[in-house]
Amino acid sequence: MRAITYDGILKYVDDYPDPAPDQDNALIRVKYAGICDTDVQIARGYMDFTGVLGHEFVGTVVGPLGTELLGRRVVGEINCPCGECELCRRGLGKHCRSRTVLGIAGRDGCFADYVDLPETNLHAVPDSVSDEAAVFTEPLAAALNVLQETHVRSEDRAAVVGDGKLGILAAQVLAVTGADVTIIGRHAERAGVIDAVGSPITIVTEAETGNNYDVAVDASGSADGLPTAVGLVRPGGTVVMKTTVAGEHALDLAPLVVDEIKLVGNRCGPFEPALRLIESGFISTEPLIERIIKPREVVETLESGVPGLKYVVDFST
Amino acid sequence: MRAITYDGILKYVDDYPDPAPDQDNALIRVKYAGICDTDVQIARGYMDFTGVLGHEFVGTVVGPLGTELLGRRVVGEINCPCGECELCRRGLGKHCRSRTVLGIAGRDGCFADYVDLPETNLHAVPDSVSDEAAVFTEPLAAALNVLQETHVRSEDRAAVVGDGKLGILAAQVLAVTGADVTIIGRHAERAGVIDAVGSPITIVTEAETGNNYDVAVDASGSADGLPTAVGLVRPGGTVVMKTTVAGEHALDLAPLVVDEIKLVGNRCGPFEPALRLIESGFISTEPLIERIIKPREVVETLESGVPGLKYVVDFST
Repeated sequence: MRAITYDGILKYVDDYPDPAPDQDNALIRVKYAGICDTDVQIARGYMDFTGVLGHEFVGTVVGPLGTELLGRRVVGEINCPCGECELCRRGLGKHCRSRTVLGIAGRDGCFADYVDLPETNLHAVPDSVSDEAAVFTEPLAAALNVLQETHVRSEDRAAVVGDGKLGILAAQVLAVTGADVTIIGRHAERAGVIDAVGSPITIVTEAETGNNYDVAVDASGSADGLPTAVGLVRPGGTVVMKTTVAGEHALDLAPLVVDEIKLVGNRCGPFEPALRLIESGFISTEPLIERIIKPREVVETLESGVPGLKYVVDFST
Repeated sequence: MRAITYDGILKYVDDYPDPAPDQDNALIRVKYAGICDTDVQIARGYMDFTGVLGHEFVGTVVGPLGTELLGRRVVGEINCPCGECELCRRGLGKHCRSRTVLGIAGRDGCFADYVDLPETNLHAVPDSVSDEAAVFTEPLAAALNVLQETHVRSEDRAAVVGDGKLGILAAQVLAVTGADVTIIGRHAERAGVIDAVGSPITIVTEAETGNNYDVAVDASGSADGLPTAVGLVRPGGTVVMKTTVAGEHALDLAPLVVDEIKLVGNRCGPFEPALRLIESGFISTEPLIERIIKPREVVETLESGVPGLKYVVDFST
């Protein structure tokens, strides 16, 4: 099958062996796969990953026979926990120390014609949700996780640092709470995308000074996003860290203590609520697609750096 | 009056002018003042403070006439907010940008025979609470603030990094929740102090590897305390930052995001609950006193570095 692989070198291949899932795993024919900033980092050696990249997809279950979701359109959670360790028993499976993670750690991903995942990871996509919207389920779930971990109140002022796809998704998630949401971005032209998603979000290229945001989300994807976000919140406010930047970074910690700021690390989130918010129309994702590309174009896309909006890979033809 | 002052040079003086409080402020004759690590840092130039040091005290209100608490033993909250800005109106007075802070910012402290504070900052000390216990109200309130901002459950495992006075107070506060509490310290002999305070706290000089603490409090007072605390908590766990170390510090942030760790900056806390916990006997503070010293000994004590347990200055004679 076709696949985009990394083993120190990023490659497009057309003879990668098909997955051979066991009883508990489903085989999925990939329709669309989404490119995430993490893929760009993995293609640079992050996580020491080798294998097929990719962890955002929508596809159709094609096997094995007897699988409950056979023939259904599905999206899939990326963490595959062991189910037996203390963290798993405590309901912290997504943090299982011996987990594999789709296209990120120890498990081939979805930049391929076929992918396999445990059936328990899969969620059927409602008929009214298009493939172009469903492929955003994973990143939207990650954005939704901001609300899982942090209580955002309807009277809050919320800021998002970063106007990329995750930043806009996070802003949309914050906006459904009724909070007053501002994106601090670098691309004035993203205002058109914000208009298209239809959420009440303000976008600015420079934060007003003296702002006292209750919550700030760092979805910048760069090392300077965190100090910017810390500078935006009021004393006692919360900074949600969505950006994984490898390596150590200098941060002045004393003001965090004196101003009692909370820094909240935040990663994967819940799929069912994400599908509900797409189905309801409260969150619109399709305007975030910048281009739909062919499998042969993925290597060049990843090597040219972080795409601003969403690149979706079409494996259907 | 006698006072310990800093203006670039740390000094003991015996001719400092008495405070002259206006209508809204009470004049307090200081009995005991407690030395805090922050005082050591201020004596090295932290906060660019000039004036009388000291922010932990117990004393007696001696003026002005008509003051409700006249003649009463009191302890005092250290933040004096403006009462009018947006933060004050939102109930965040302790973070007021134009606040003064006793012996820390813009206001003479309590290393002196007399100190003045707004009456609204004062709390009467119950008769059954000794002066030696009451002088711990401020640091105990700061330790209690860990629970104000973080939900510690009775089934949690909690770690405290640092076996100094704040570390032991924080461990005592955690222990009242029923949580399983371990101090990771550097002084094996502190076990005797732990015995004396009577809380069910384990003290070790090296953390077991693979520990999965739900909560860790950095009360180490040193820059390496935070990475130690981060290494102790399970995924999804909380690290409470009690240590203010000036300057930038390198921290690897990616694991915080991947493991969804919360870092919670934490400072001053509530006085009334602190007095209740002392009065009830749930928290014992007197065993934390290492020495009661004379005002003339403060300069030498501060210059010799951070005292391990509590040094209390006796201004009564």
